[in-house]
Amino acid sequence: MDFAEYRLRGKEMVDYIADYLENIRDRRVYPNVKPGYMSQLIPHSAPLDAEPWDQVFGDVEKYIMPGITHWQSPYMHAYFPALNSFPSLLGDMLADAINCLGFTWASSPACTELEILIMNWLGKMIGLTDEFLHSSTNSKGGGVIQTTASEATLICLLASRTEAIQKYRDENETIESELDDAEINSRLVAYCSDQAHSSVEKAGLIGLVKLRYIESDDVYSLRVDKLIEAIECDKKKNLTPFFVCATLGTTAACAFDNLELIGPVCKKENLWLHVDAAYAGSSFICPEFRKWLKGIHYAQSFAFNPSKWLMVNFDCTAMWVKNCEALHRTFNVEPLYLRHENSGHGIDYMHWQIPLSKRFRALKLWFVIRSYGIKGLQNHIREGVKRAQKFESLVRSDSRFLIPAIRHLGLVVFSLQHGNHLTERLLKRLNTQGDIHCVPAALKDKYVIRFTVSSQYTTDDDIVKDWCKIENAATIIISEHETTKFLNVQGEYLTAAKKLGTFGTSLLLSNTPMSPKVVNGSFAAIFEKEDSVLSPWTQWLNQLCNETKFSPNLQKRTRGDLFRSRKQFSLDSRLNVVHQMFFRINSSPLLEFVKNTMNEDEIKEE
Amino acid sequence: MDFAEYRLRGKEMVDYIADYLENIRDRRVYPNVKPGYMSQLIPHSAPLDAEPWDQVFGDVEKYIMPGITHWQSPYMHAYFPALNSFPSLLGDMLADAINCLGFTWASSPACTELEILIMNWLGKMIGLTDEFLHSSTNSKGGGVIQTTASEATLICLLASRTEAIQKYRDENETIESELDDAEINSRLVAYCSDQAHSSVEKAGLIGLVKLRYIESDDVYSLRVDKLIEAIECDKKKNLTPFFVCATLGTTAACAFDNLELIGPVCKKENLWLHVDAAYAGSSFICPEFRKWLKGIHYAQSFAFNPSKWLMVNFDCTAMWVKNCEALHRTFNVEPLYLRHENSGHGIDYMHWQIPLSKRFRALKLWFVIRSYGIKGLQNHIREGVKRAQKFESLVRSDSRFLIPAIRHLGLVVFSLQHGNHLTERLLKRLNTQGDIHCVPAALKDKYVIRFTVSSQYTTDDDIVKDWCKIENAATIIISEHETTKFLNVQGEYLTAAKKLGTFGTSLLLSNTPMSPKVVNGSFAAIFEKEDSVLSPWTQWLNQLCNETKFSPNLQKRTRGDLFRSRKQFSLDSRLNVVHQMFFRINSSPLLEFVKNTMNEDEIKEE
Repeated sequence: MDFAEYRLRGKEMVDYIADYLENIRDRRVYPNVKPGYMSQLIPHSAPLDAEPWDQVFGDVEKYIMPGITHWQSPYMHAYFPALNSFPSLLGDMLADAINCLGFTWASSPACTELEILIMNWLGKMIGLTDEFLHSSTNSKGGGVIQTTASEATLICLLASRTEAIQKYRDENETIESELDDAEINSRLVAYCSDQAHSSVEKAGLIGLVKLRYIESDDVYSLRVDKLIEAIECDKKKNLTPFFVCATLGTTAACAFDNLELIGPVCKKENLWLHVDAAYAGSSFICPEFRKWLKGIHYAQSFAFNPSKWLMVNFDCTAMWVKNCEALHRTFNVEPLYLRHENSGHGIDYMHWQIPLSKRFRALKLWFVIRSYGIKGLQNHIREGVKRAQKFESLVRSDSRFLIPAIRHLGLVVFSLQHGNHLTERLLKRLNTQGDIHCVPAALKDKYVIRFTVSSQYTTDDDIVKDWCKIENAATIIISEHETTKFLNVQGEYLTAAKKLGTFGTSLLLSNTPMSPKVVNGSFAAIFEKEDSVLSPWTQWLNQLCNETKFSPNLQKRTRGDLFRSRKQFSLDSRLNVVHQMFFRINSSPLLEFVKNTMNEDEIKEE
Repeated sequence: MDFAEYRLRGKEMVDYIADYLENIRDRRVYPNVKPGYMSQLIPHSAPLDAEPWDQVFGDVEKYIMPGITHWQSPYMHAYFPALNSFPSLLGDMLADAINCLGFTWASSPACTELEILIMNWLGKMIGLTDEFLHSSTNSKGGGVIQTTASEATLICLLASRTEAIQKYRDENETIESELDDAEINSRLVAYCSDQAHSSVEKAGLIGLVKLRYIESDDVYSLRVDKLIEAIECDKKKNLTPFFVCATLGTTAACAFDNLELIGPVCKKENLWLHVDAAYAGSSFICPEFRKWLKGIHYAQSFAFNPSKWLMVNFDCTAMWVKNCEALHRTFNVEPLYLRHENSGHGIDYMHWQIPLSKRFRALKLWFVIRSYGIKGLQNHIREGVKRAQKFESLVRSDSRFLIPAIRHLGLVVFSLQHGNHLTERLLKRLNTQGDIHCVPAALKDKYVIRFTVSSQYTTDDDIVKDWCKIENAATIIISEHETTKFLNVQGEYLTAAKKLGTFGTSLLLSNTPMSPKVVNGSFAAIFEKEDSVLSPWTQWLNQLCNETKFSPNLQKRTRGDLFRSRKQFSLDSRLNVVHQMFFRINSSPLLEFVKNTMNEDEIKEE
């Protein structure tokens, strides 16, 4: 493709994109395909000769679009938003064309310098304190764009691990100077709420540190008394607490941990406090939502995703630290500092991140902030919240529905009065229809449907239409239920329901604390026909029961305090519990056993 | 910006990009700016009100372009290529507009399925064996797109760590079942050549495993006898070797490790062999360059960057594994498999990577491969190699120059006959001129300039022009040198030269094994005026000498075998050596001392 053809084809693509976004309401938000659909359409080897562009581009509408979940659709209410906007698209077009790699200042000065400036803009916009910003004085704070919030959490956990290992060494120099880093690491303990995102668990696994899930209270906020208790308990075991991840805007219900309560504990115990505000962080550009940020001065690091609600297309995570030297020490052994008058502007970002190289992502952020202005972005956030309020009032007007958690910002969680089982059937029906898309979450023992207002194109009219679809589907589900009395278990516990195999697979769609450790199963979560999910799932559970050999880990976890404390634990932890119970009573038939053990409190430890 | 304005502005951007790339020869490839230039041009806070697009876009040419290192320029010979192409730009435009997050199959089926298919295309194109490909049968192999080669190396090291810990547990169940993962981890040892990329060291730091740098031979290929020796030595210390990273196409000189020799060692010792072919991997689409891939069947994982030489814009790293279950176990505790007939197509890629979410990067890869065809891409690679051959012959025709390492593919390394010091002055002069851009590397004790043929727009004519600039600059440098006899040390050792402070800072530009651990210093590497680098650098060295307190780590490293074995160690290791030496003799003046210790062999261990 030469320059002239690119001019032609690029403009054609601009029109295609404008058409796509302008008419996105006409497309089914969730696609109607089964795994493997594409392998029947596309050759299994690359072409030897060049293909004409018309042929290549024509295949987009034929083979790609039918398999897309349309995240920009007003009918997309699943997960959290992942929005783009025209200024963002233009910024990324330009960044791709320049295609510079910003690992050092020298590898492309503008890439580093714009990132420094824009991270300061953004930090001020959400009300971060000065110590998190780059400054020309001797501040060690600053912001950096990471790929994802998962990566930000991991990096901050690693940085705090480095600090903790060094501190341990300093304090125990004479006694245990022979311990190497990995041995000291085995004593470190991190903490987060049972509502924290699954990426915190991933970070713990990569960092090889112990991670404690602290119980949340009845508004799904981390219980500080339980945090203190856990820290005391670990210290008695001669372990070293080092890191707390607090969440502002949890995945399941957009709940908020209280930094003003957690902060002083971290300060007293000298723990690194990381604040994950992946979704809610965007709202802090509005002063009225900034109340949740109180206590941020206790934190060492903070991250949120402009790639979610701020209309900066994915990927773009804004992360700030108070002391960048902790990052340098993490990715270098004892780094040396070349001191010079401009060192605050001559940052080499390769020392702030896991990959060496980075894209020129500051450009899209710059374009978006300037094209909307702070006021325009505030307006966008407030409109989203208003739509969610509208949806909430519609749900409350129908007595068949419940709203089990306070609505904050743009997320409403709801369920059917009829309990978990029917709520899940409702969700699966909606997703199978494909004209609106939601995912579920588990709030302690309640199965809920999450409805996020995502797109900037969503109107009040869209919200009313969506609600009609939900009400109609509910009417059908309830009527079917009353006719068949199929598995008529009212108000059953989540664990019990999972034992029955009536739900659980749909939770594979949610990246909540109950998120799946079941591999390659997300497709199963969409199907309405219960047979196609229930039967392999039950078969598989039965197969598990018949396996005679268990790993020590599995046994430990099954017997563990996770279970006894009735904390919100992950899907596979729960499955392990089931697994273990079957092991103990593997003579009983599946369903019989489950009915007899509906109350998990009765199950005694071996 | 509404739909109509986007149609207008998008097309304007297409023209701007076409103009930018078409006329890129007119721009200085390396910018003429100092750190902090942008903070004087751009406001320090975000605008309250929206700004008109003309104003936003107008600032690109005013403030951004003057600070860009133009990676697409034919005069860009630094690092390795980071190319884009029109089909790639169009693919990413579309991916950004769709902006779906591909963490699970369900989150956007087309995103996952196209990635599966295209990774099979690409695997076949470079000649990978079937066991690395996705297949509908029970294969556990498959490919995935990662962000960077750094991330691929880290992920494979983590996966092999998981396997090693499990194996250790299985083998020592009765004796040491109480050891936790982090304690077992402290016994693990990884290996790579002293020519491996700096990201291997980063992966080792994150994974908290011991990493041994194995000496390379005189063609910079890992010495297998030394590898065996190191493994035996570690086993005697009761440590557990687990991972080897081999490099195909090293950063410094594009040297190749020999998989047919390393492979059998890994097989015998049951080590995970990861192959990092970040740059050279693209060339394997040409059968004549596939000789280096012999022995790939011994590897557990393989990665290369289509974002380098294949004209797929950054980021895009292709990674394959033989057994994806090792990845699943790394990012999950004991994952459970939902088995179903389509499980090979219903992959949830969140279990194959560090971040939860991923961009729809398969699209740009698909567009590029189809638009060029295999033949077109082969032609592009071969043309690049021909240009490098052309450059090599020009260097050889001038007796003032040396080529200290065999040229493979598109990279030529060269130096002046006059030794390290003058070669570095030549490089700095070229980069300060800014009309061609190169970075250096250190090959054992030799300082070399790396000249990579990167852009697809590079013509033979460009190569000749670049060579003239280099020859002219060399003539000036040599004549200055002969006049002033400034620091006339011929053929000095790298370490000695660093002690003199005459070079070292320029190596901050290279991501080679000698790459910097000096933070925020890359800008200093460009300046020609030695004063501005030399004087703070020497001051800083002197300051180091005067510090009385050293960390135990620093002392250990300084005395360590790194130094005695004369291996290729990193810049800061070398600086630590200097540091330590000054500590011991801190009464001597700097220069006097250095002159007396030019031969590092004479320095005895304490």
